[in-house]
Amino acid sequence: MVEFAQFGAGRIGQIHAGNLARSDSAKLRYVVDVDPKSAKKLAEKYGAKAVDRDTALGDPKVGAVVIASSTDTHADLAIAAAKAGKAIFCEKPIDLSLKRVDACLKVVAAAGVKMLVGFNRRFDPSFKSLHDRLRDGEIGALEQVIVTSRDPSPPPLEYVKVSGGQFRDMTIHDFDMARWLLGEEPAEVFAAGSCMVDPDIGSLGDTDSVMVVMRTASGKLAHINNSRRAIYGYDQRVEVLGSKGMLRAGNRTPTTVERAGIDGVARDKPLHFFLERYAEAYAAEMAHFIAALGNGVPPSVGPKDGRQALVLAEAALKSMKTGAVVKIPQ
Amino acid sequence: MVEFAQFGAGRIGQIHAGNLARSDSAKLRYVVDVDPKSAKKLAEKYGAKAVDRDTALGDPKVGAVVIASSTDTHADLAIAAAKAGKAIFCEKPIDLSLKRVDACLKVVAAAGVKMLVGFNRRFDPSFKSLHDRLRDGEIGALEQVIVTSRDPSPPPLEYVKVSGGQFRDMTIHDFDMARWLLGEEPAEVFAAGSCMVDPDIGSLGDTDSVMVVMRTASGKLAHINNSRRAIYGYDQRVEVLGSKGMLRAGNRTPTTVERAGIDGVARDKPLHFFLERYAEAYAAEMAHFIAALGNGVPPSVGPKDGRQALVLAEAALKSMKTGAVVKIPQ
Amino acid sequence: MVEFAQFGAGRIGQIHAGNLARSDSAKLRYVVDVDPKSAKKLAEKYGAKAVDRDTALGDPKVGAVVIASSTDTHADLAIAAAKAGKAIFCEKPIDLSLKRVDACLKVVAAAGVKMLVGFNRRFDPSFKSLHDRLRDGEIGALEQVIVTSRDPSPPPLEYVKVSGGQFRDMTIHDFDMARWLLGEEPAEVFAAGSCMVDPDIGSLGDTDSVMVVMRTASGKLAHINNSRRAIYGYDQRVEVLGSKGMLRAGNRTPTTVERAGIDGVARDKPLHFFLERYAEAYAAEMAHFIAALGNGVPPSVGPKDGRQALVLAEAALKSMKTGAVVKIPQ
Amino acid sequence: MVEFAQFGAGRIGQIHAGNLARSDSAKLRYVVDVDPKSAKKLAEKYGAKAVDRDTALGDPKVGAVVIASSTDTHADLAIAAAKAGKAIFCEKPIDLSLKRVDACLKVVAAAGVKMLVGFNRRFDPSFKSLHDRLRDGEIGALEQVIVTSRDPSPPPLEYVKVSGGQFRDMTIHDFDMARWLLGEEPAEVFAAGSCMVDPDIGSLGDTDSVMVVMRTASGKLAHINNSRRAIYGYDQRVEVLGSKGMLRAGNRTPTTVERAGIDGVARDKPLHFFLERYAEAYAAEMAHFIAALGNGVPPSVGPKDGRQALVLAEAALKSMKTGAVVKIPQ
Repeated sequence: MVEFAQFGAGRIGQIHAGNLARSDSAKLRYVVDVDPKSAKKLAEKYGAKAVDRDTALGDPKVGAVVIASSTDTHADLAIAAAKAGKAIFCEKPIDLSLKRVDACLKVVAAAGVKMLVGFNRRFDPSFKSLHDRLRDGEIGALEQVIVTSRDPSPPPLEYVKVSGGQFRDMTIHDFDMARWLLGEEPAEVFAAGSCMVDPDIGSLGDTDSVMVVMRTASGKLAHINNSRRAIYGYDQRVEVLGSKGMLRAGNRTPTTVERAGIDGVARDKPLHFFLERYAEAYAAEMAHFIAALGNGVPPSVGPKDGRQALVLAEAALKSMKTGAVVKIPQ
Repeated sequence: MVEFAQFGAGRIGQIHAGNLARSDSAKLRYVVDVDPKSAKKLAEKYGAKAVDRDTALGDPKVGAVVIASSTDTHADLAIAAAKAGKAIFCEKPIDLSLKRVDACLKVVAAAGVKMLVGFNRRFDPSFKSLHDRLRDGEIGALEQVIVTSRDPSPPPLEYVKVSGGQFRDMTIHDFDMARWLLGEEPAEVFAAGSCMVDPDIGSLGDTDSVMVVMRTASGKLAHINNSRRAIYGYDQRVEVLGSKGMLRAGNRTPTTVERAGIDGVARDKPLHFFLERYAEAYAAEMAHFIAALGNGVPPSVGPKDGRQALVLAEAALKSMKTGAVVKIPQ
Repeated sequence: MVEFAQFGAGRIGQIHAGNLARSDSAKLRYVVDVDPKSAKKLAEKYGAKAVDRDTALGDPKVGAVVIASSTDTHADLAIAAAKAGKAIFCEKPIDLSLKRVDACLKVVAAAGVKMLVGFNRRFDPSFKSLHDRLRDGEIGALEQVIVTSRDPSPPPLEYVKVSGGQFRDMTIHDFDMARWLLGEEPAEVFAAGSCMVDPDIGSLGDTDSVMVVMRTASGKLAHINNSRRAIYGYDQRVEVLGSKGMLRAGNRTPTTVERAGIDGVARDKPLHFFLERYAEAYAAEMAHFIAALGNGVPPSVGPKDGRQALVLAEAALKSMKTGAVVKIPQ
Repeated sequence: MVEFAQFGAGRIGQIHAGNLARSDSAKLRYVVDVDPKSAKKLAEKYGAKAVDRDTALGDPKVGAVVIASSTDTHADLAIAAAKAGKAIFCEKPIDLSLKRVDACLKVVAAAGVKMLVGFNRRFDPSFKSLHDRLRDGEIGALEQVIVTSRDPSPPPLEYVKVSGGQFRDMTIHDFDMARWLLGEEPAEVFAAGSCMVDPDIGSLGDTDSVMVVMRTASGKLAHINNSRRAIYGYDQRVEVLGSKGMLRAGNRTPTTVERAGIDGVARDKPLHFFLERYAEAYAAEMAHFIAALGNGVPPSVGPKDGRQALVLAEAALKSMKTGAVVKIPQ
């Protein structure tokens, strides 16, 4: 039984706490949040205590932490947790600054603690199945990867301002997905972007519509397309082409109901957003982390994965600005 | 907060206990099972006690019972619970004998306790959505109902022997589905059956493949087809035709992955059996029962529903034997 | 090169003449129609002559006839053609009276001419593929057949009056489909029907909504459901269940376009009616007939098929009236 | 009635001649081919004559030509036809050299003859429907276009050698599709490519796997992915995202049959290659050209379309070589 301290009692924090509670091998001991009321409410729901950071990290009974607080606190908390010898489940991104990420990862490595970075989509049953079947050789040698990823609607402008920009905030998930599926690091990144959805996003110097092409040293190609708005719901699809065929994973819907009427045949639109679509993925992610704590195997999504996705985001940003391919040191 | 006693700690009992545990308004207090070890194990998992029937029903703190024990005990337990003033969540069927069902329902009615009969499929998100959209008039006036319901593989012969036969054991769910969708009682039942899957089932005088046609007084038609074996999984589909269109609800799959290869394009087969397919339905069913305990509204699937499905099963059996339509008293 | 005389220059006659024209082994020589203008127009389009019946049948250069005139003329024309030694392509039904059908088939048999009865659906690429894969053993031993067949809208009342009723006019196609898929004659027929779509049809003593269940001697079960109205188009589906799986063939659509919008994801409704849906089937049917003229093999849909579908329609009518299963002499 | 001379009696020439023959407003008068036997065979099938080029172009009864000969002859034939005052249906590409294309188009413009360039995919019922619904505003303002286009297997190396390379030979269709859907000229092109399918193609300096991203002046983004091999068939899909939703058009299949078995649920793979997939498109294309000859409207795919697709192919090639975006003069 591993006892946990969790930082962050907001929306995603509640998801993680609930998944922790369902485990027979883990227990939530502490909740820490800048808002004491939120911390208390979440703590009470699961028989934990709302405390401050130092209490949580200072308690030797705590074996692991969940970092689900605001992005700007991730790196500091990970550093503090690592120094205290706690295993770390850290929501993505580790930080928006590659320099700070590197500083953090250095401490984590020195401490020798396990760390999972929250690329939840790798735990989606459909994407995981596609990935595993690809690795099992079902479509022979991989040649192309296509990732479609669109949010149902743009985030509030206040969020956009501190998000680090579309590549670091949104595409970062898709960079991770592409890396994971490619099984090989992209060597070249090209990106183009526009503001097509909300002019206010453009005023902030950000994009809301982007397309990326990447190429690995062996010649594999990957494409990502993103939009901040798909009014039909959260559009999350992956396609891989290989020498012996293609695998695709599509959206999930609330029901299987189909209506045939005078205007056509209509089905449900995709599940609305990440909390619905990735509910199973979040549960599987936490179960994986807890399992990793009890065996000698590191979590399948580690610090390097967190770093590399950011490297690709930075490269995409540079490529979009310069109109040229950016090479990624291999 | 309603406290529960649960009878039965087997497979379906574990499902119900788990769903109870997730509620903020209910608590499992007692588990009763013929096997004390099973009772103890399940009780401990949820902080309850394993006790005998009289203790459970004699405790005034217990407000409701879940009857998830073997079929032959349902009616007696429901009678005892009703006499003790407990609300009743009873797995289907209430009993295999219509006479005993009537005796039981008389006591329940006299006691004035709430009773839900476990036709779980009504709570499946897809079937419920289809039903509600039908009632909302999306396809105009209903004309035809088609229910396809096939198990992945036949049950053990020992089970077949005590099951009451395919109509009472398997089709009973589909009779309930048809009644619910028709919104009107069938007035005539015709049934045909064969033993096509397993000759041993035939040796017991039972069928494994049946087709039913029903007609209501207003002329609506309903068809059910059943098989004890669909090697591609648990096949559960519903289709309704109306003056303004058709609604269909199909199977659910573990993932959305699709593989295009030299031989065609293949997707997952349906979820394997009822525990997987109806996991959400069982949870919604228990949530509905708990909610009904707290308000003035009776559960949406009550004693009469349990009785009428059995009436239709009896009629189907008679029709199959006589080769003639059997009329249902309205 | 076989030269043809065609009786009937209406809608279906035009289809057949067009398909004849595409063949390198057949040529349309004569067109006969009660309306001389229609006959002339169609004849001229394909370089044929509009003549009367006796001229057409009396010309020794004519090797085969297409009977696509009104239903009440089919049997007489087939008899006359057979006596003249012409091969016969006869639209379904041969006649609405079983007695007249038998009289006709007796003459055809005595004449030893080839005869194809126009159950066009057997030539639909999807249904034919399903049938052939079923026969090839892809789903093991056949157990159940389900045929869904719905017209987009009811025919004019004038047509209904002379149609012979829904079973003889509409279900007859599905009886043929069921027989073909079962690969075994139905031994028992049950049918139920209602007037749900158009009260005027009911006033004529006819139904517009029917359901049938059939059983073969070996226990295979078949279900047919029909409606005279599916406002979403011509709904033509077939499903077969066997010991090793299921095969289904569904509707075809004008395009593959799918629209994802705020209300859901919508595709095309099915092709509107039989001329669109079965265009390929009509072409394949004529090509099959022409090929059969040139080799020693009888057409795959022969006189007996025309007769047996009518036998089943009669049985269904009787079953609907009596509420009892009707046995079919084997 | 317009009389036609057709250059080329090969595979695609036979398609065009067959479509011509089906028209009531057009007639094939001459067939010209380097192989006199092929010319004669095709001519005889449709009641035309096999002649030489000068005879065909010198006959004042000929109003239009179909150029379906080898690519290197297109421009010369188009020039000669234009000078002879004939309307021109020209298979794509006009030429592999932009310089020669420009020379040809200058003559065509000077002659004032109508010219259709054979981008057949614009006439595919699904793509045309998608395009028209997009233009009708069904998904609001267009933001992104995604074109997936994969051949079932690589062409013979002899063909690759003279093809002009993958961008000019294969992607050219997709450049046209993207332009047509965007409704605005791409201003920037980026391309990446690899040889993943067949090393021999790489030895010739060509690619077999490419990805393109384009951006218009207003910020619309377009992606194309191509492969010379999709072992599951000819994969031709288009997707457009707009402010009010998404439209997609997918592959077509020979049948709608679906098999549910122990391993999953499998459907047909896509139609094998362009002759099957685009049969309807070729017919509609010819019908459009013939209709354009009889009215005052120019064909919907004209000389400029043929030129611009080649401009984009050249830009893609340059981008792939330089690793930088190539700007297209607007």
